[in-house]
Amino acid sequence: MTLNVKGYAAFAAKEDLVPHNFVRRDPRDNDVVIEILYSGVCHSDIHNAYNDWGGAKYPMVPGHEIIGRVTHVGKAVTKFSVGDHVGVGCMVDSCQHCSACEQGLEQYCEEGNTLTYNDVDRHDQMPTYGGYSDKIVVTEKFVVKVPEGLDLKSAAPLLCAGITTWSPLRHWNVGPGSKVAVVGLGGLGHMALKFAKALGADVTLFSRSPNKSEDARRLGAEHIVISTDDAQMKAVYNQFDLIIDTVPYVHDLKPYIPTLALNGTLVLVGYLGELDPVLNSAPLVLGRKSVAGSVIGGIAETQEMMNFCGEHGITSDVEMINMQDINDAWQRMLKSDVKYRFVIDIASLKA
Amino acid sequence: MTLNVKGYAAFAAKEDLVPHNFVRRDPRDNDVVIEILYSGVCHSDIHNAYNDWGGAKYPMVPGHEIIGRVTHVGKAVTKFSVGDHVGVGCMVDSCQHCSACEQGLEQYCEEGNTLTYNDVDRHDQMPTYGGYSDKIVVTEKFVVKVPEGLDLKSAAPLLCAGITTWSPLRHWNVGPGSKVAVVGLGGLGHMALKFAKALGADVTLFSRSPNKSEDARRLGAEHIVISTDDAQMKAVYNQFDLIIDTVPYVHDLKPYIPTLALNGTLVLVGYLGELDPVLNSAPLVLGRKSVAGSVIGGIAETQEMMNFCGEHGITSDVEMINMQDINDAWQRMLKSDVKYRFVIDIASLKA
Ligand SMILES: [Zn+2]
Ligand SMILES: [Zn+2]
Ligand SMILES: [Zn+2]
Ligand SMILES: [Zn+2]
Repeated sequence: MTLNVKGYAAFAAKEDLVPHNFVRRDPRDNDVVIEILYSGVCHSDIHNAYNDWGGAKYPMVPGHEIIGRVTHVGKAVTKFSVGDHVGVGCMVDSCQHCSACEQGLEQYCEEGNTLTYNDVDRHDQMPTYGGYSDKIVVTEKFVVKVPEGLDLKSAAPLLCAGITTWSPLRHWNVGPGSKVAVVGLGGLGHMALKFAKALGADVTLFSRSPNKSEDARRLGAEHIVISTDDAQMKAVYNQFDLIIDTVPYVHDLKPYIPTLALNGTLVLVGYLGELDPVLNSAPLVLGRKSVAGSVIGGIAETQEMMNFCGEHGITSDVEMINMQDINDAWQRMLKSDVKYRFVIDIASLKA
Repeated sequence: MTLNVKGYAAFAAKEDLVPHNFVRRDPRDNDVVIEILYSGVCHSDIHNAYNDWGGAKYPMVPGHEIIGRVTHVGKAVTKFSVGDHVGVGCMVDSCQHCSACEQGLEQYCEEGNTLTYNDVDRHDQMPTYGGYSDKIVVTEKFVVKVPEGLDLKSAAPLLCAGITTWSPLRHWNVGPGSKVAVVGLGGLGHMALKFAKALGADVTLFSRSPNKSEDARRLGAEHIVISTDDAQMKAVYNQFDLIIDTVPYVHDLKPYIPTLALNGTLVLVGYLGELDPVLNSAPLVLGRKSVAGSVIGGIAETQEMMNFCGEHGITSDVEMINMQDINDAWQRMLKSDVKYRFVIDIASLKA
C-alpha cells in the first residue's frame, strides 16, 4: 500500500509553509492508517520549523494534535477498526522496553521516543511527517480513542496542550482540596484551568493583566492574582500545592515560589532553557518546596485524559482555520493572538 | 527555680567565644530541665555567631545538638522522668496549632518555630540560649528520648546533622531499591551516607577528590563518583532517585541534574542563597526531575530517627573537645578539618 499524502511543509527556517505532496512509510501489521480530519497548531510547530531548537529536517510537515478516522488496520491490530475516531499526539513510537516505557511513560523513553514529525521511524528509518496533512500511519500503541460524543474539532488540541497539563495535574495528585495555580493563559494554560477545575481543585490564574479575568473565570479559575501586584502576591503566599507554569519563554520564577504551600511544586511545562534570573534556595529549603518540569504525557494517561474529557465534556477553545491560512495563523500565534488554539480543518486541503 | 547557667557566648560577630554565666527562663509546668552532657558543633553556629545571615542577638550561646540528662520535670510533664537521657535539636517550641505543626512538621511552623538559640521564648519573651552551656529548659514536646545503649557523646550530632539528612530520606521514601547520591562529605554528608545505607539504598558519594573514597565506603557508600570527571558523571546519568546535596556554600547544581533518574529529586539541605549559576529547565522538563529543599525535621521524626539509630547502632563520627577549645575548633571547621563533627564535653565547663 503506497500512501500518497497531501500536506503543507516548511522547506527552510522562517520560510512560509507551502503545499507539499509526499509518500509516507508503508503500513506494517500493527499500524493503523488514519484519514486526518483536524490538526491543532502548537507553538512548538513554529519552534521546530524555525529551527529554534536545532535539528530541523526539511521538508518538515508539522502538526502533533491530530484527530482523524481510521481507514485501514494492519492484520495484527486489535484495538481499532475502520471508521473509529482516533487521536495522535506528539509521539508515534518508543523503544517499548526501557523502564520508562514499561511504566507507560513513553514520553520519557530512555532511548528517545519517535516524534510525530521531524524524526525518523525507528524500524524503517523513513522520515516522520505530522498532522498538517491528510493521512498518517501510526503503530496502534500510539493511537488513542476519541470517546463518543466529544466534539472532534476542538478535541485536537487535547493531544498536546491537553496532555501536557493533564499529566502534571495527575502526577502531583491534584483533586478535591488541592489548590492549583496556573501561570500563563494560552493554549496550555486554558486547558490547565479547565482540567484543574474539573478535578475538583480550587484554581487560581496568575496573570500580568486584569483584562483576562472574565475569560479565566469562565475557564475554571476561582481567583485571579495579578502577578505584578506585590500586595496580591503576598496575599497568596504559602497557598498552592501545585503551580503549573505554561509560559513558553524565559521568565523570573522567584515571585511564584513563595506562593507555594509547604511541600508545593512549581512545574514547568512550556519552557526549555535557562532559568534566568537565578533562583534562591532559601524558600525551597525553608518550605520543602520544589521546582520541577514535565513534558507531555504517556499513552495510557492520554487515553485516560480523553475518557475524562468525554465524561466531563471538556475540549479546547478553538478557532478553526483552513490549511491555506496557516502562515497567517502562525504570525498571529507569535503575537499570542488566539483564543486559545488554532485548529486546521484538513478538509480544506482537498479544496 | 532560678536556673544559673555556665556557658560560652559570642558577644559580637567574628569575636572569640568567651565564658559567660547567665540565667535561663523559669521552668513551666510542661518543661523539663536538662543537665547538658554533650553539645555538637554545627556550621550554622558559626554562621549565626558571625551574623552571616543577619539577625544575630548578643550575647549568643550557640549549640543545637544537645544530649543531656533530665534533672527536673514540671508537674504537667508526662513523657520524661528525672534521670532520662534526652536530646534537643534546633527548635525548642512552635505555635502548635498551624497546619504544619498539626502534621508534626514543626520545622515548617507557619508562625515560625522558636530556635534553640538566638531567638526568644514565645511565652515569656526571654532569650533562648543553646547547648554550649551546662543546662537548658525545654518544653517536653521538643525533647526526644535517647534509646538505651546509644553512645551519648556521638549521638549529639544526630539532633541537627542527623535529622537534616534523615528527614529528606524519609520524605522521598528511600528504601531498598532506591538509588541515593550524596554531595559533600562533612557532618551532614557522612550522616546521609550512614542513613541511606541503613535504609537499604544503593549509595553513591559525589566527591571532588578521590582521597575520600576509603572513608566514604566505610560510611556506607557503594560507589564514589568524582564530580569533576565528565566520563564518571556521564556514566551515572539518569541513575539517582534522590540526591542529597549537603554543600553549605554556593555551587553549580547543573552537573548533578542529569544524574537524576526519571522522577528524581535533588534536595538541598545545606545551603541558603542564590542558585548561581542559573539552572536550565530542559533536563527537569524532559525527565520530570525536581530541585527541592528541606530543613531539619519534625519532632516525631526526630524521635523516629533516634529509635532507628538505637536499633541500627548509628551515631556520628565525632572528635571530642573541651569547651575551652571551641574557638580553635571553629577555625578548623572553617577549613573542613574535622571528621566529621566536633562534640563538646560539657563536663569541661566545670573544670
Ligand atoms: Zn505541542
Ligand atoms: Zn523506552
Ligand atoms: Zn545545625
Ligand atoms: Zn505552627
